[in-house]
Amino acid sequence: MSTESLILALDFGGTKLAAGLINGDSRKWMASGRRFSPANSNATSDIEIMYELGRSLLKGNKPIAIGVSFGGPVDGKTGVVRLSHHVEGWENMPLKKMLEEEFGAIAIVDNDANVAALGEYEYGAGVGSDSLFYITVSTGVGGGWILNGKPWGGHEGMAGEIGHMVIDPAGPICLCGKKGCVERLASGPYMAKDAKEILKVAREGNGGRKGEILRSLVGDNLESVTGQLLTQAADMGDKLSQEILHRSAWALGVGIGNVANVVNPKKFILGGGVTKAGERWWNVVRKTARETALPEVNFEIVAASLGDDAPLWGAVAMARRLVGEASEASGRTSVFAPLGDS
Amino acid sequence: MSTESLILALDFGGTKLAAGLINGDSRKWMASGRRFSPANSNATSDIEIMYELGRSLLKGNKPIAIGVSFGGPVDGKTGVVRLSHHVEGWENMPLKKMLEEEFGAIAIVDNDANVAALGEYEYGAGVGSDSLFYITVSTGVGGGWILNGKPWGGHEGMAGEIGHMVIDPAGPICLCGKKGCVERLASGPYMAKDAKEILKVAREGNGGRKGEILRSLVGDNLESVTGQLLTQAADMGDKLSQEILHRSAWALGVGIGNVANVVNPKKFILGGGVTKAGERWWNVVRKTARETALPEVNFEIVAASLGDDAPLWGAVAMARRLVGEASEASGRTSVFAPLGDS
Repeated sequence: MSTESLILALDFGGTKLAAGLINGDSRKWMASGRRFSPANSNATSDIEIMYELGRSLLKGNKPIAIGVSFGGPVDGKTGVVRLSHHVEGWENMPLKKMLEEEFGAIAIVDNDANVAALGEYEYGAGVGSDSLFYITVSTGVGGGWILNGKPWGGHEGMAGEIGHMVIDPAGPICLCGKKGCVERLASGPYMAKDAKEILKVAREGNGGRKGEILRSLVGDNLESVTGQLLTQAADMGDKLSQEILHRSAWALGVGIGNVANVVNPKKFILGGGVTKAGERWWNVVRKTARETALPEVNFEIVAASLGDDAPLWGAVAMARRLVGEASEASGRTSVFAPLGDS
Repeated sequence: MSTESLILALDFGGTKLAAGLINGDSRKWMASGRRFSPANSNATSDIEIMYELGRSLLKGNKPIAIGVSFGGPVDGKTGVVRLSHHVEGWENMPLKKMLEEEFGAIAIVDNDANVAALGEYEYGAGVGSDSLFYITVSTGVGGGWILNGKPWGGHEGMAGEIGHMVIDPAGPICLCGKKGCVERLASGPYMAKDAKEILKVAREGNGGRKGEILRSLVGDNLESVTGQLLTQAADMGDKLSQEILHRSAWALGVGIGNVANVVNPKKFILGGGVTKAGERWWNVVRKTARETALPEVNFEIVAASLGDDAPLWGAVAMARRLVGEASEASGRTSVFAPLGDS
């Protein structure tokens, strides 16, 4: 098999490190692999693991480009990581430059939400929608834009932070210091936290019946409550869990409706663990967003279709675009554009 | 004087109709004029007034392009007006086509907030800021985008409606049916309405002292309270007026901070009557926006610099861009691109 247009896609996902190798315009991985980032890892050890994973996929071949999704803020222009909220030591790491030196190929690095948005646009639920906002509702709530068919990262690469849109100034306090952020109400860990606190207070005889299904799922060990268990309890009829999930969906719906009014994208694509909460959750998101947007503002809200692979596919799309730009800039029709050519 | 690249700029502003004529790349009007739209006017009569105004400026010359700002929702692609909230009969009016037939020149029509945004970007407070959000805070609250140096109108031309972003679900009801929209809290008429209602209830001995300066400004004729008088009373130390203005600035600041988080533009440019409320109002807008945005999201908030002329200058910019595109499409370097050429 010809390997002259190999693209290496990397996903630094916090606790998971993933890589895939693809050839030319193929839609199938030639090879892929995943590693867990060890509990005591830091930026340097994660990068070493990723180098090794990349080499094991490449088997001595050289890629023409590397696309990278990073789970944290990145300066997309320079490919320098600003920091990671999960792993130590990422401050101002010149990841693009390091990868270019390690693998001898041009590289492009962006934030995971931006990259996943591009993945869904090129290969997933966003195909054909020239303007879309991808939102991941999981441990946190973040988003990435496609506008006019291109990623929009913002003036300094910070666009997409719908998780920290304030929608209820009387709401509970978020980690960011503000009250009533979308993330504070809609994310998995915050839903679990709120359920725990209510269950701690509401012992039997004290209105405690409402969360009893959830309590029984964790054998009264409240520290084990998670967003996923809360969803399960809601499905089983637990009223407390249903209320908390409803508030999550409501908060996200207000956020989406607000964004629809201000930016008017064609489509919202939702991914991440919380979006697996079932029809009830989706219905509230859709209804609230529809009521929040002006009647003449039209949009669709759909589920992401690439799942956990969205960042890797987005990394492929970024790398393919980079190769296209590089060969355009060099005035050649070949996709091959060696490093340093201008 | 050569008149081979005359551009006609029109501003349908609700109660005001304005037009300007400019030649080539000039930054000075060759001629301009304003007319008031009569109280019983409708779309047809306003268009007739504008035709006459345009002809009086052109003096028999033919423009190469017409740029049009319209005070209401417009389909920017087709140049069809959707409706006007102020003047009857604008539903589905093909304004672009009508003007092209009347004046024998290519035309482009867009919503006033989008057009004013482009005006400020090309000739005003936004020069050099490739991403900006222009907000007018006046009778209503609306906005227009420049992203990557180009107007962003949204998937269906509805982008910019920051006025109907919900920022307080426990807030008062807006004309749009929702609670706690930015416009419901920040716009001039709503500030006046809230002041009136409080003054009606709060007669003397009933906590009424708080709005007494405002009350004295209107000689106890509460129906005469306006946003402008409220600003004046606040300057004179009226506590009620100060509180209402503070809430206006706070609401707008939350809206701006939310938009900064989601879209990360470089600059926010504020125009419209309410922005003349003075330093105190501006300080609260800036402080609230700064607190609402994440610490790593940077932006500036500045005053519009073109004032009431922003839509006309934006119309000039749109028409100039249209001429550029038309001559590019026809493969010629001349700016002259006759109607119907493709």
